[in-house]
Parts: sequence; C-alpha cells; structure tokens
Amino acid sequence: MSDLPRKAAILGAGVIGSGWLARLIDSGVACSVFDPAPNAEAKIAPVLDNAERAAAALIDAPRPAKGAWSLVGSIAEAVAGADLIVEAVPERLDVKHATYREIEAANTDGIIASSTSGFRPSVLQEGMARPERLIVAHPFNPVYLLPLVEIVGGAATDKAVIDRAMALYTELGMKPLHLKVEIDAFVADRLMEALWREALWLVKDGVATTQEIDDAIRYGCGLRWAQMGTFQTFHIAGGEAGMRHFMEQFGPALAWPWTKLMDVPEMTPELVDRIAEQSVTQADGRTPRDLEKIRDDNLVAILKALRGTGWGAGQVLADHEARLRGK
Amino acid sequence: MSDLPRKAAILGAGVIGSGWLARLIDSGVACSVFDPAPNAEAKIAPVLDNAERAAAALIDAPRPAKGAWSLVGSIAEAVAGADLIVEAVPERLDVKHATYREIEAANTDGIIASSTSGFRPSVLQEGMARPERLIVAHPFNPVYLLPLVEIVGGAATDKAVIDRAMALYTELGMKPLHLKVEIDAFVADRLMEALWREALWLVKDGVATTQEIDDAIRYGCGLRWAQMGTFQTFHIAGGEAGMRHFMEQFGPALAWPWTKLMDVPEMTPELVDRIAEQSVTQADGRTPRDLEKIRDDNLVAILKALRGTGWGAGQVLADHEARLRGK
Repeated sequence: MSDLPRKAAILGAGVIGSGWLARLIDSGVACSVFDPAPNAEAKIAPVLDNAERAAAALIDAPRPAKGAWSLVGSIAEAVAGADLIVEAVPERLDVKHATYREIEAANTDGIIASSTSGFRPSVLQEGMARPERLIVAHPFNPVYLLPLVEIVGGAATDKAVIDRAMALYTELGMKPLHLKVEIDAFVADRLMEALWREALWLVKDGVATTQEIDDAIRYGCGLRWAQMGTFQTFHIAGGEAGMRHFMEQFGPALAWPWTKLMDVPEMTPELVDRIAEQSVTQADGRTPRDLEKIRDDNLVAILKALRGTGWGAGQVLADHEARLRGK
Repeated sequence: MSDLPRKAAILGAGVIGSGWLARLIDSGVACSVFDPAPNAEAKIAPVLDNAERAAAALIDAPRPAKGAWSLVGSIAEAVAGADLIVEAVPERLDVKHATYREIEAANTDGIIASSTSGFRPSVLQEGMARPERLIVAHPFNPVYLLPLVEIVGGAATDKAVIDRAMALYTELGMKPLHLKVEIDAFVADRLMEALWREALWLVKDGVATTQEIDDAIRYGCGLRWAQMGTFQTFHIAGGEAGMRHFMEQFGPALAWPWTKLMDVPEMTPELVDRIAEQSVTQADGRTPRDLEKIRDDNLVAILKALRGTGWGAGQVLADHEARLRGK
C-alpha cells in the first residue's frame, strides 16, 4: 500500500515549489499548481527539464508514469481534493497566514506542509481552524536531487500527521529528518548560516575571495561533510578514543579568538558589490544556468558513488530504487 | 623536471605526520621520520595501510615505486640533507620554536613547512636565523586523500619559497591554496569552527543529537559543499541574477537572531559526555577504525565521481594521473 498522496496541491512555483512538483510527478503523483505570477509556466519548465535530466541519469529502476499536473487559477482550485498541500509562498508571515485561511476555506483534511526555512510551525499555526494538520517540511535546493527534508511539528500538530509525513517523504525517495524541538530556522540552515556568516567576514576583511573560500571547502572539509557530517568525522579524528579524545584536543580551540563571534557583518553596498562581482569572476563565464547543470551532474555522480559504497545519501537512493523495483 | 623534493624529513608521526609520509612515499620521495614516542612505528603503520588501500583504488595511472623511509633517532638525523622539512609536532608554540632551533642547527636550506592549523607563520618565524624558508602548509585529514593544503607565508617568507611550495604540493597530487593574508587558523578551519560551534549549541540546547546534525549535513548541504562550496551554490540559488539577487533575499536573514552569536559554549563535563556518548551511539557498533575505512571508501568514490564530471577535486585527481602517465 502506497504512502504517496492521491493528489497534491503546490502553492508557489518558485525554485522550491517547482522542485517539489518535479519530485511529486516523478513518483506519479497528480499535482495542481497555483502561482499568481504571470510567468509561472516559464519558472516551472526549466526546473522540470533539469529534474528529468537528473532522474534519468540517477535512478536505476523502472520509474512510474509521470503524474499529471496543471496550473490552476486559485488556491481553492489547487487544494480541492488534495491530501497533501505544499505551501511554498514567499517567506512573509502575513502572506503565509493569508494562504492558510484560503486553504482552510477550501480543504478540511489535507496535510499542509510548509516549505518555510525559518518560521516555527507553532507560529504558522496561529489563527488556524485546524492547525493539527500543519507541519513544516523544509527541503533543500535542488529539491529533486537532495534527499534531506526537515520535518517539524508545532504545538498543535497531530502526532499521526508527523508519522504520515515521514512515510510519505520516504516514499518520494527523500530522507525525512524529524526534529523534535522547534527553533527558528531549524537545524540545517543554522549550520549553513554559521558558515556563511564566517565566510562573509573573510571576504569583508579581505582575507580571501569567494573563490578561495569555496576552494577551501570543496577540496577539503566539504568532501568529509558530504558523507559523514561533522561529528562522526571528528569522532574518527580522535583515533581509538574517538570524540572524547578529539574534544580534549580541539575543544579549547573554541575559546581562542578565531571566528567572528561578536556580530553580523553589515551588508553594505560595497560588500554586496564585492561578493557579487567575485562570484561572477569565479563563475568564469558560466551563467547560473550553466552552473546549475554542472551542480546537478556532480550531485548525480556523488549520489551514485555513495550508492556504490552503500552509505548515507547513496543508501537513500538504493532504498528508493528497491521500492520502485518492488512495485 | 620534477618539483618533488629529493629527500623529505617528517617531524612528528601522528595522524598528520603519518599522512604526509604516505603522500610523499607514494610519489616516490625518500623520507626520514622522527617522533620521540616509543610507539611511533605503531602509529604510522595503520595510516600507511589505509593510504595504500585508498591509492590503489583511486589512482588510475602507473604509480612510481614507493619512496624509501625510515624512523631515525633525532631531528638532526631526520633533516640532514632534506630539501623539504615537514613539521607536524604538537600545537604548542614553545615546542614548535624549539623544533625550529634544532632544525636550523642541522639544515640550512630546506623548506620548513609547518602543518599547524592555527599559528600564523610570522609567529612561528620569531627567533629563527633563516625565517625566509618557513611556510605553513596546512593539510586536512586524511592527508593522503583530501587534496586541500593551505599555503601561507609569513612576513619574512621568501616569495620564491611560496612558488616552490605551490609546484611541489601540486606534483604531490594536491590542491595548494595560497592565502595572501595571514590570520590565525587560516580559512578552512575558521569555516569548520563556525559550523562546529553552532552544532555544539544545538546539542547543548537539546535541539538535536550529533546523529541528527550529521544527517542534516550529509543528506543536504554537505552534498552541495563537496563540489561547489557555499558562494557558487548561492550564486546558482539566485537564479539568472545570481548572487546579487540571492543576497537581496537572504542577506537580511543574517540580522535575525538565529545562530548563536554571543559566545562559545562552555565545554562542561556534561556536554563532553553527551557528545561523546551520542557519537558512540551514532557509530552503531563501528569503531573509529571501522569508520575510517568507510570514510576512505566514500572519499575514493566521491573523488572518482568528480573525476567523471571533470569538476573540482576530481579535476585535481585527473591532472595528477595525467602527470603520472606522462612520466
């Protein structure tokens, strides 16, 4: 018996909403999409093209027939009969609350899954008639390739909705990570933000360029993070004694005045210009669209490589393929 | 004409010194190793075994005959006639300065390359008779697999020594990153420390376990970092307008009270216990030695995958193989 939704509604067709659409139709789920922008179709098409290209290269198993999808004219029309409602509207609380009001007027029992990267579900649930069906399901770009989705319930969320969501996203080929404690920005974005902030300081202080910082990551620690994260990596670095020994050695370093703890770098026009210009220089003539294809090719290759070792994201892929073969 | 050293001295046979030994003998360089510990041989052997296992699986080109190496009884004996002196002694400034005094008494012209992860080369150079030949060459564990090495000169460093080092580490199959500005801990460790510190807060506050944090990295952002770093990833996320548009959207988020800016978590016995215990639980019965092999298998697979796409660390590998084939 399938844990997939019979019909999904996707509200907001930006890079995240379009990425969700790609994931869902690739698993054969029918979708209705609403986006007020006149160019919604033009935003969706390249994402679906990239996703199909990636899935064809990645998935070594029979893929189901694509789910039918269409752009519709209103939230009410999109959510009618949907048992999964993906909210991917702009990150403004007033916009999200208004969206939920429209959803509740037209759909009484579908799971409402917000793609927010910052708002706690309990805050999103304020003022809802049936808040128990709202969760945060926070994905990562590109949604059609990265397995991680952070699942967070709010104070009013029904435990059964969390269980249903865990099964649903697993069947979509993802790695749902259920966070038991609600905090703003959840876990992954806090880690990314801490690294990003330090990187901004290094550029602002003229210590390194964006290219040098990206190289310091992708030729070194990034290769470790991709397969084990940070704690198990340091657990190994501690030798036989593991993490305890590592912390004895490394722990004190945290008390040294190394990283910028004091505040956040001010995004002055000069800093924005510097980072924007260095990022373009670094791209070496490639457009963001060119880089998007390179990124996807690299991610496909890494996911296949980890499937070969049966580890982490590769195991998620192998499990997904096994399910597809079993159907 | 080869840029490799004729003979290398390695001072300190911990995980870093042993990793340097593996890299150097795998390129055919003769090495003398000094370590005051009685069990130096026992520390070196498993690293060389892991490195050979990894190189055999990774390098698709004829590899040179292994360089001869031996453990010797003193710093003077190790550095005699060496044109590269790898300093990998404990991270204590007094120990490093004492080591340089012994080096200078026995060797007048070899490049002295410190593996320090924190001290600025200008600080290391204090009190040296010939400081112009000292650089920092900061590698990353496992040294025999990760290409990155941060090259940093001090106030007294001869520019020609930097140029020589860049060529030398490139021929070792590495990606030397020349940092033009001296700061404590350089670039990569600052980024790792910023992420590590935030991760410690998440564990301390009971928001997530070490396993959940590692999963948030390895199933998501870690896969992006491994191949493009952070700036190019966000440059893509900005769409056609690239990084400038991304910063307009995301920049303000830095002003929100998300990550822990105020201070460093105190490494209380309770926090150390919690992290050590969670790290063992997460290892699921695997010893650090077991995880080390899994890590290496994953890194080999990822490096081969990126060789296939001709990107980043994979290009470094392809270039290295081309040099080996050309010999």
